[in-house]
Amino acid sequence: MLIIAERINATRKRIAAALAARDASTIQDEARRQAEAGADFIDVNTALSPKDERDLMVWAVETIRAVTDKPLAIDSADPKTTRAGLALLPKGSAFLNSISGETGRLGPMLELAAEFQTRVVALAMDDRGMPVSAQDRWRALEGIFAATDKAGIPRERLYVDPLVRPVSTNPEQVAEVLATIRRIRADGGGAQTTCGLSKRRHLNRTFLAMAAGAGLSSAILDPLEADLVTTALAAGCLTGEDAFCMAYITAEREGRL
Amino acid sequence: MLIIAERINATRKRIAAALAARDASTIQDEARRQAEAGADFIDVNTALSPKDERDLMVWAVETIRAVTDKPLAIDSADPKTTRAGLALLPKGSAFLNSISGETGRLGPMLELAAEFQTRVVALAMDDRGMPVSAQDRWRALEGIFAATDKAGIPRERLYVDPLVRPVSTNPEQVAEVLATIRRIRADGGGAQTTCGLSKRRHLNRTFLAMAAGAGLSSAILDPLEADLVTTALAAGCLTGEDAFCMAYITAEREGRL
Repeated sequence: MLIIAERINATRKRIAAALAARDASTIQDEARRQAEAGADFIDVNTALSPKDERDLMVWAVETIRAVTDKPLAIDSADPKTTRAGLALLPKGSAFLNSISGETGRLGPMLELAAEFQTRVVALAMDDRGMPVSAQDRWRALEGIFAATDKAGIPRERLYVDPLVRPVSTNPEQVAEVLATIRRIRADGGGAQTTCGLSKRRHLNRTFLAMAAGAGLSSAILDPLEADLVTTALAAGCLTGEDAFCMAYITAEREGRL
Repeated sequence: MLIIAERINATRKRIAAALAARDASTIQDEARRQAEAGADFIDVNTALSPKDERDLMVWAVETIRAVTDKPLAIDSADPKTTRAGLALLPKGSAFLNSISGETGRLGPMLELAAEFQTRVVALAMDDRGMPVSAQDRWRALEGIFAATDKAGIPRERLYVDPLVRPVSTNPEQVAEVLATIRRIRADGGGAQTTCGLSKRRHLNRTFLAMAAGAGLSSAILDPLEADLVTTALAAGCLTGEDAFCMAYITAEREGRL
């Protein structure tokens, strides 16, 4: 399972302060620690204010690239910021985080995804807002698939996030999300899946495993929560994605579980 | 999810020694600790030797019942031992562990299950041996369902164990087992599921969550492995089985997670 490391995000106070101060060592430290903890991609979100977002993205990408070779996920709702970040990275290497079926947001982002040959996080929602049922999610996805196919983005590069609401307040949502992941595996024409995991430790770890059992390809998470990385590694071993459990056994030997 | 606590089993050296010596305090200590750790049922297996099994079952059941009110699972392949254990317990309270579709074993056990109104662990295998595919498991189950229906055992009292092989050597088995759990939920006429979990900590914890996501009703495990109990509680919260997450929140408050 691909791990997209979420810590470098302007919604976190510590990161907001580091971005505002152009404090390179804090950002680089976060990048390094996430890479060591098992990140496959490092997410970069610099949405401190509309005025600064693009310049901060350029600064943050250059700052992170100075200390790690891990590929990045450019996390912005603004096409100009997204372009500025992607333009600094090797073509074909990055994630674009994210598109959705909402009118107005989709077109410019798809052009960037095609131009820079990115992988794409696709939120399973459209203009009708946050989905409730598996059917809502599938309806939004049909619109997204039509648009991504037309833009020439291979399904294999598309990572659909079924959008999990806070679980303890919406238990019925878990079944709908797991059904969506299974349906994407079965009928998504090769589309991948991902999932943003929030902060409730045991619930997240357990949900991550359930989603992996339903076929989840990727997760957006904090790799310094070792439980989550361990669960992702164990899931790879259990589903056979990690052939002969080599990654799991290596992590075990290195004391990372 | 129902937790069937597996530690009082003659295959464990410590338990074998305690049974042989009729060491009540060791057995009672195991029973008490498992009850405190979250067991719903305490499994009792006294298969030290064919000669002693029945007498040891009577002794063990009485010994355990002296210190806990938790219901028991009588775990024996021998109908006489099973009858001796069940006869000491309130009708309708116990588990019979286990039946399978193997000729010769099934008939006498079903009579006991009906007479004592037990819940029943049903292993998804028949005379063709350990199942490989989900189809093998379903074929065995069709035979078992026919027999349990005829014996008047309600499907809701039947806990099918799809039989998980050691996972790291058989990654393709996980998909087959999860498919079996989902199929039992969908087409099993109300039948429940259970699963014996062996000793590989992170793999087990992750597999347990995957199986819960597929609809697992119960698990046979060591409740002193706190990770597994935490995962079972988190799974209940996520699937809505634990309404309003009350059991999970209570465990969290009591520092048991």
